[in-house]
Amino acid sequence: MEKDIEEMCDSSNCFPLRTMESAKLETVCIFGTGDFGRSLGLKLLQCGYSVVFGSRNVNSSNLIPKGAEIFGHVEAAKKSSIIIIAIHREHYDFLSGLADALKGKVLVDVSNNLKINQYPESNAEYLAGLLPGCKVIKAFNTVSAWALQSGTLDASRQVFICGDDNKAKEEVMEIARCLGLMPLDQGSLLAANDIENYPLQLFPMWRLPCYICAGFTVLIFLYCLITEVFHPLAEKKEDTSYLIAISIPNRVFPIVSLILLALVYLAGIIAAIIQLYKGTKYSRFPNWLDQWMLCRKQLGLTALAYAFLHAIYTLVMPIRYYVRWWADYYLVKQIKSNGTSSFSNYYAWLSDSYVALGILGFFFYVLLGITSLPSVSNAVNWREFRFVQSKLGYLTLVLCTAHTLVYGGDRFIYGAFYRWYLPPAFVVSLIIPCAVLVMKFILIVPCLDQRITKIRQGWERKSKVVNNGSSNMQ
Amino acid sequence: MEKDIEEMCDSSNCFPLRTMESAKLETVCIFGTGDFGRSLGLKLLQCGYSVVFGSRNVNSSNLIPKGAEIFGHVEAAKKSSIIIIAIHREHYDFLSGLADALKGKVLVDVSNNLKINQYPESNAEYLAGLLPGCKVIKAFNTVSAWALQSGTLDASRQVFICGDDNKAKEEVMEIARCLGLMPLDQGSLLAANDIENYPLQLFPMWRLPCYICAGFTVLIFLYCLITEVFHPLAEKKEDTSYLIAISIPNRVFPIVSLILLALVYLAGIIAAIIQLYKGTKYSRFPNWLDQWMLCRKQLGLTALAYAFLHAIYTLVMPIRYYVRWWADYYLVKQIKSNGTSSFSNYYAWLSDSYVALGILGFFFYVLLGITSLPSVSNAVNWREFRFVQSKLGYLTLVLCTAHTLVYGGDRFIYGAFYRWYLPPAFVVSLIIPCAVLVMKFILIVPCLDQRITKIRQGWERKSKVVNNGSSNMQ
Amino acid sequence: MEKDIEEMCDSSNCFPLRTMESAKLETVCIFGTGDFGRSLGLKLLQCGYSVVFGSRNVNSSNLIPKGAEIFGHVEAAKKSSIIIIAIHREHYDFLSGLADALKGKVLVDVSNNLKINQYPESNAEYLAGLLPGCKVIKAFNTVSAWALQSGTLDASRQVFICGDDNKAKEEVMEIARCLGLMPLDQGSLLAANDIENYPLQLFPMWRLPCYICAGFTVLIFLYCLITEVFHPLAEKKEDTSYLIAISIPNRVFPIVSLILLALVYLAGIIAAIIQLYKGTKYSRFPNWLDQWMLCRKQLGLTALAYAFLHAIYTLVMPIRYYVRWWADYYLVKQIKSNGTSSFSNYYAWLSDSYVALGILGFFFYVLLGITSLPSVSNAVNWREFRFVQSKLGYLTLVLCTAHTLVYGGDRFIYGAFYRWYLPPAFVVSLIIPCAVLVMKFILIVPCLDQRITKIRQGWERKSKVVNNGSSNMQ
Repeated sequence: MEKDIEEMCDSSNCFPLRTMESAKLETVCIFGTGDFGRSLGLKLLQCGYSVVFGSRNVNSSNLIPKGAEIFGHVEAAKKSSIIIIAIHREHYDFLSGLADALKGKVLVDVSNNLKINQYPESNAEYLAGLLPGCKVIKAFNTVSAWALQSGTLDASRQVFICGDDNKAKEEVMEIARCLGLMPLDQGSLLAANDIENYPLQLFPMWRLPCYICAGFTVLIFLYCLITEVFHPLAEKKEDTSYLIAISIPNRVFPIVSLILLALVYLAGIIAAIIQLYKGTKYSRFPNWLDQWMLCRKQLGLTALAYAFLHAIYTLVMPIRYYVRWWADYYLVKQIKSNGTSSFSNYYAWLSDSYVALGILGFFFYVLLGITSLPSVSNAVNWREFRFVQSKLGYLTLVLCTAHTLVYGGDRFIYGAFYRWYLPPAFVVSLIIPCAVLVMKFILIVPCLDQRITKIRQGWERKSKVVNNGSSNMQ
Repeated sequence: MEKDIEEMCDSSNCFPLRTMESAKLETVCIFGTGDFGRSLGLKLLQCGYSVVFGSRNVNSSNLIPKGAEIFGHVEAAKKSSIIIIAIHREHYDFLSGLADALKGKVLVDVSNNLKINQYPESNAEYLAGLLPGCKVIKAFNTVSAWALQSGTLDASRQVFICGDDNKAKEEVMEIARCLGLMPLDQGSLLAANDIENYPLQLFPMWRLPCYICAGFTVLIFLYCLITEVFHPLAEKKEDTSYLIAISIPNRVFPIVSLILLALVYLAGIIAAIIQLYKGTKYSRFPNWLDQWMLCRKQLGLTALAYAFLHAIYTLVMPIRYYVRWWADYYLVKQIKSNGTSSFSNYYAWLSDSYVALGILGFFFYVLLGITSLPSVSNAVNWREFRFVQSKLGYLTLVLCTAHTLVYGGDRFIYGAFYRWYLPPAFVVSLIIPCAVLVMKFILIVPCLDQRITKIRQGWERKSKVVNNGSSNMQ
Repeated sequence: MEKDIEEMCDSSNCFPLRTMESAKLETVCIFGTGDFGRSLGLKLLQCGYSVVFGSRNVNSSNLIPKGAEIFGHVEAAKKSSIIIIAIHREHYDFLSGLADALKGKVLVDVSNNLKINQYPESNAEYLAGLLPGCKVIKAFNTVSAWALQSGTLDASRQVFICGDDNKAKEEVMEIARCLGLMPLDQGSLLAANDIENYPLQLFPMWRLPCYICAGFTVLIFLYCLITEVFHPLAEKKEDTSYLIAISIPNRVFPIVSLILLALVYLAGIIAAIIQLYKGTKYSRFPNWLDQWMLCRKQLGLTALAYAFLHAIYTLVMPIRYYVRWWADYYLVKQIKSNGTSSFSNYYAWLSDSYVALGILGFFFYVLLGITSLPSVSNAVNWREFRFVQSKLGYLTLVLCTAHTLVYGGDRFIYGAFYRWYLPPAFVVSLIIPCAVLVMKFILIVPCLDQRITKIRQGWERKSKVVNNGSSNMQ
């Protein structure tokens, strides 16, 4: 049975390692022979530790990895100063019976819950309450048994660690480092609650951007449905429902993408206006603005995803039956009427310009996306990061807005495009981006720009406090 | 000569550093003035260490980086407690003559071989055998001279370290950390063999997926060749060989991509069935299944590469001479016969649906690929990683299978598409994905799903062992 | 006011943490209550440190994060052995008045300048000169206040640290590690100048590639403008200015991309020729070649960006008015003249081949780009990195060159394509790639290849030095 874990690791993309026979590091004790306990035990063995398991059933030695030993809980606890408690919280009670054997030991709580804030106090604090004589450290709960088995390469290597005893914490961090993990000290045991909730989170930073995006998507979709499907149906009895598969999504994607991209920069502009108005950067932003500022990266990436979909939806146009049929239809009509459409330099320019603007906008969009990758943004300095995210970001917004404006072309004026007095959807989509660009344009007027720069460096209007602080951030 | 290395580093993307004159850290001795020895010496100097070189030829001081000193081996060894042996294994013999001078020193073996398992024992173990009085540590062999020179930014920073003496190992790990490298403790000197083989590996985890992919590619290619080139040639004497450049590859890519994607999830389904059948997760999987499970990520990325090729091969369609010629041909024929093809809502829906399904499938494919990037998967927690890889993965499989099914449309029935009684290739390609989806559908029936969840949490049918272990992995 | 920082962190994508009340680590003192001082203070509090602020205005306690205390400078300095100097260099003077209180303390200089080499000596060295009794450490200047507030996830975590006192440096590095940052020891205080310049750099490694790329872009653009816009205007009075938006860029992008890709490999070939000629690798390369070799990655990525633009500019072709108009025009002409163009197997092959070659070339281009991502190149060993960058790189170059050659097809010969005796631009673009491929072909002739391999392993012609060095790099 333990063979399966070993084999998996031996053949894995982790650097294969044999169980060492010599040169052991200290001995680590693990209570519990469950999945996680065994995986951790095997990994510890591979990294040169001696491992003893504590279990009620000392005969289940076929359960534990080769090289480890199994004892009763009391006897196992004697062998090591560090005991990893790899058992469920519900079974913690029996540990209070071992209070004497565990006295002064470092207990590592690795448990997780099934729900966020499942219990009033965190498992680690509960354990510390049961065994006041022990140094309880919360650790390893963010690591999965599977990741340990397969070499910890594919999932997160971060191990959040907290505890009230600094020396004990340092010992556990050292073990984590030996296992090839990246320990991050999170302070006292009070942090255990957050650490236990962490693995249960599902993209908390993406929630707001997803709601915003979904909201706009539904809104614009309904708007397009009304003007492009219901209107012809009601007015001309034409069935244009086939537009729902591609044509209407390909209107929704670029519009929502442009709005989201504008929202990314609108947050910064509102913040600048508030700072200008209050004459200080030390006044707290309203809560909604804080939330908004913090999810700008996610908003931008959602906008990029929609821009990507818009790009492909546009490129497949000549493959679609609907598009080909109409192209052929107009051509046949033209031939039959013996008419000739003369080549228009104006339309050639217009068509090529909006396509070129769109492509360049998409190109910088993708560039922004690439620099958002953690490993890329880690390799640039702060000034470079801001250059890309701010300068290139605004360039992208300008290009995409221009793309939409040129696409509109004459259509802004002609009434034929106004169905039921509703303007085409892309006109609606231009409101926020244009407003953002106009406001940004006003804000970079020298006198305002200098004022904001001063405020961001810590200057305050009517400031009574002598401020001798430095600012690293412009 | 050493100037060249220095200049390279000074002008490099590494953060340029001058050779320090003051505040030296300890002295490190390097035996060997070869390429790697010199590069390591220069890097050590830059990081504040004093460096002495040991060489037979003490007059070759023009060989060593500025700031370092050169002595005979014995004299150099006296200056430091850590000696880096940057010479080839074939020349290790002469070191046994220096046994007295080296007694008690830490010897760092940095050597590599030319072939995997070139010698019966690892170089480091051989060195330890020659000099039993020394503490031999294997390290730095995974780092290249070039990477050291150019700032260690582009290639791997991982340094695998092993050795029998923990204190000596810690000292070497400290040096690696100072050089900006990431030391990973691999246990005792027994691991040296694996560490020496590591830099000689060439994508070991990609071998199996590549073989599988190549096998399917050849098979489907031949199948398409028979039905689309040989069949018209034999039956109608038509030369359709021009299909080989794009049309047939564009059939092979999506088919193989879909099969590979299905194979990724088939492994998990077979594993679940085995676990259900045996009533335990602690029974070892057959070896082929282990191998298969471990290369799922690589299989998925290969499938993504093929999907990417399929996307571009499809998008270029309207540019191709062959496609344009036939479009024109049909149009001309239609005009000459004065016929009109009426617009079909049904075909507009069909054509747009399969294109839209394909695009959405490709979109989630790309999303899966992005989350496979090491830096992205490191930034998400385990639950988020599983959500993306499992939920989004199945969504991708469903979308791509539906894309193929709708593409098929009526063609499943019409005999015209069956050449030599062979069904079109895409029909063949649907077998595995549909089987996977049906099986998955059965497995998520509540009663089976609960059983599997229990088994994965450590529950065993007829289990006699009291299992008090916790499981971090659902 | 400090609430704003706290709230931002609490709601951020950083793992939210409460300010701990118990289990404090040591006390850290911060001079200066500016933006950066406060952000650092809050982060230190969150990680379990006690924080005291030193300020002229001890009543401004509403400025500092909750949990910290504020004192006069002297009193604050007494509370801690580590003092972070978060004030501007211009205000350093007053510190010399505190020389007694600061004696023997570790002073951490976190300041930045506004310009590269703004002052003759670095801020940290200036501080060390003012306070000779203190141990001055340069650190944290590469971290932004914003990054500290928002969880240090999005921007670089690297903290460059230098200083003359190793123990003090180690203490500061420990603090950086606790804050979740990645300290990199850069040696003595002499490195402070470089460290202070680092955050002011703006992509220094990209400058040369960008200049090269911009130069070629302008050149080829003008060349195409002359042959495709000015020539028809002068000779036939045709206005083809509409080609400027897409058609001419789509000639410039592939040509420059191909040239840049060839330049990446030309550097290595010139280096090999120089090494062959001089018979040693230890002779210094000319400076321009060094520069060139070091920016190959950036050159390659610029080439990939242009290839990406070329791909999209090509794929939008059938959407463009200009392209559709001419396609219709020729079709209408053909119908009216009642002519029929027969299907040509030759053209079908030619058209599909060059498209297929282009797609495959682009595919490997993208693969090269992905392996250039820091997190991907960190996960492969040196041999795998070189396999991808060298083998796959040459394959890409061969495919892209072949793509251009086949695209040329017959056009090389027909004079109609030579306007004003200028060959079409793509003919010009083939010179460098073909030269590179021919030279590479010569260099891999066995006798030359063996010679180069020997030289790269350290062998020297007429070498008088006994070389007992090992080489890790082939």
